[in-house]
Amino acid sequence: MKTVSENRSFGGVQGVYSHASEACKCEMTFAVYLPPQAEHGKVPVLWYLSGLTCTHENAMTKAGAQAWAAEEGIALIFPDTSPRGEGVPNDEAYDLGQGAGFYVDATEAPWAANFQMWHYIRHELPELVFSEFQLDRDRQGITGHSMGGHGALTLAMSFPENYRSVSAISPIANPTKSDWGRKQFAAYLGPDESKWRAHDATILMEERGYPGTILIDQGSADQFLDLLKPEALVAAAAARRQPFEFRMIEGYDHSYFYVASVMEDHVRWHAENLR
Amino acid sequence: MKTVSENRSFGGVQGVYSHASEACKCEMTFAVYLPPQAEHGKVPVLWYLSGLTCTHENAMTKAGAQAWAAEEGIALIFPDTSPRGEGVPNDEAYDLGQGAGFYVDATEAPWAANFQMWHYIRHELPELVFSEFQLDRDRQGITGHSMGGHGALTLAMSFPENYRSVSAISPIANPTKSDWGRKQFAAYLGPDESKWRAHDATILMEERGYPGTILIDQGSADQFLDLLKPEALVAAAAARRQPFEFRMIEGYDHSYFYVASVMEDHVRWHAENLR
Repeated sequence: MKTVSENRSFGGVQGVYSHASEACKCEMTFAVYLPPQAEHGKVPVLWYLSGLTCTHENAMTKAGAQAWAAEEGIALIFPDTSPRGEGVPNDEAYDLGQGAGFYVDATEAPWAANFQMWHYIRHELPELVFSEFQLDRDRQGITGHSMGGHGALTLAMSFPENYRSVSAISPIANPTKSDWGRKQFAAYLGPDESKWRAHDATILMEERGYPGTILIDQGSADQFLDLLKPEALVAAAAARRQPFEFRMIEGYDHSYFYVASVMEDHVRWHAENLR
Repeated sequence: MKTVSENRSFGGVQGVYSHASEACKCEMTFAVYLPPQAEHGKVPVLWYLSGLTCTHENAMTKAGAQAWAAEEGIALIFPDTSPRGEGVPNDEAYDLGQGAGFYVDATEAPWAANFQMWHYIRHELPELVFSEFQLDRDRQGITGHSMGGHGALTLAMSFPENYRSVSAISPIANPTKSDWGRKQFAAYLGPDESKWRAHDATILMEERGYPGTILIDQGSADQFLDLLKPEALVAAAAARRQPFEFRMIEGYDHSYFYVASVMEDHVRWHAENLR
C-alpha cells in the first residue's frame, strides 16, 4: 500500500492510498478517513460507495462527511468505482467501463479481466484496510449514492452478517428494469438476465430483505428519478414489512449539494446502529 | 355546546364537549386540548382522527399527545368516529356503523340520515370550534390512526388549502382494495365503485398528491398490515415524486402503545409545518 496523501481533518486524518489490486489487475486508489478516536483503539467503519463517473475523491471532498464521522468516532472508506488505467478496458459512454463498475464481478469480455468490483469491495479492499488501520471488522456499515447506493443495498442484503447497518442515497433501485442497469448488466454479466437478479435491490428486497432497518433518501427534484425507480424498491420493502425509513425530500436533485445535505443523517444513522 | 369535562393538563386544558350535530342528527362528543399558549392568542390546530371502534376518548387518554402539544403550543382536536345513540343505525360488526364512520358522507339507506362524517369533520365541527376556542383557522394540520389515518390523508389531499400539514399513523391506505374499505364503501356509498375513489388515499395520491411533505408511520409487526396496504400508497407516492417520509418501524403493532411511541414526532412535525 502506498500513501498518496494524508491531511489532518476534524482532529483525525484523511488519507488517500493506492495498492496493486489482484482482483482488478491494476493499481487502485481509495481514501480512508480515520476519526480522532482511532488513535485509542479500533473504530467502526462506514463504507461509502460512489456513483457513476466518480472516483474515491468526490465524496471525500464534497460530502462534508468527516465532520460527522469525527463527532461519532466512525471511520469512512471511499473506494474507487472501477478499475482504471491504460491497460483497463473502457467505453466512450460515461456509464460503462471506467467510472462505472456497477459493483459486480464481470464475466464477459473484455470486462471480466479487470471489472471485479463486487469481490474487490467485499473481500480484497477489506483485507487491506483491516490490516493497515485501526478498524473494527465486527462493526461495518455501508452506504452510497446512486450507483453506489445500488452497491450498498445489494452488498448489504447479500452479506448482512458483514454489513450490520445499511443506508442509501438516491440509489439505483431496480437496475434490471432501468437503462442504468440493463446496459451494464448485459455488458458485464451477459445476456442471461437470471444472472442479473442478484444485483437488483428490488429483487433482493422481494426475496431476502435485510435484518435491520434501512434508511433511504431521495430528492424529489432528482433529474434521474425515472432511472432510479425508488417506487419499485419502497413498494417491495413495504409489502415485505421490511423495517425501513424512506424520505422523498422536496426540491433536492442528484448532486453532491444534496448528498452533503443528508450526510449528517446517514453518518449518525450508521454510528448509532453500530454502537 | 355543552361542557362535559375540563381538566388541567400540562399547563393547558383538556376539555370534552358535546353539541347537537345537524349533519349527523345526533348529539356528538369531541375533545379539545388547548395548550397554555392559547391564553395569549390563537394557536395552530392539529386534528386527530381516530380509528375503528374508537371515540373521542382513546387518543385523548392513551396517546400522550398533550405533553408535546403544550411544548409546541398547538391545540389538539379529537372528534368522535361516527354518529352515535339510540336513533342512529348500527351493525353488529365492529367495522360498520357506530364507531366506524370511515370519514365519508353516506348516500345509502339506512346510513345516509346520520353518517355524514366527511362534512362533519370538514365543515360542521370546525365552525363550532373556531367560534368557541382560540384557534387559528389559517394554521390547521390533520393526522390520524388507521381509519383515522385514512380520513386524514383523504381530507388533506382533497382540501390542501385547509389542511396545511398532514401525517398519518398506520393509515388504511388503499381501502378500495381492502376489506377495510370495500365493505364500508359499499354500505355507505353504494355499489358504484367510481364513487369510492375520492376516499382512497392511494388513488388520490396517483391523481392529485399533496402540496407539502407527508409523514407516514407504520409498525412492521402490525397485525392488520394486509388490510392497511401501505405498499400501494408508498409506491404511488414515490412514483409521483411526492415529497414524503415513510417509516416502517420494526416490531411495533397497531395498538396505542405504538401510537404513543410516535406521537411526539407527529405533533412536532405539524407544529413545525404550521409555524
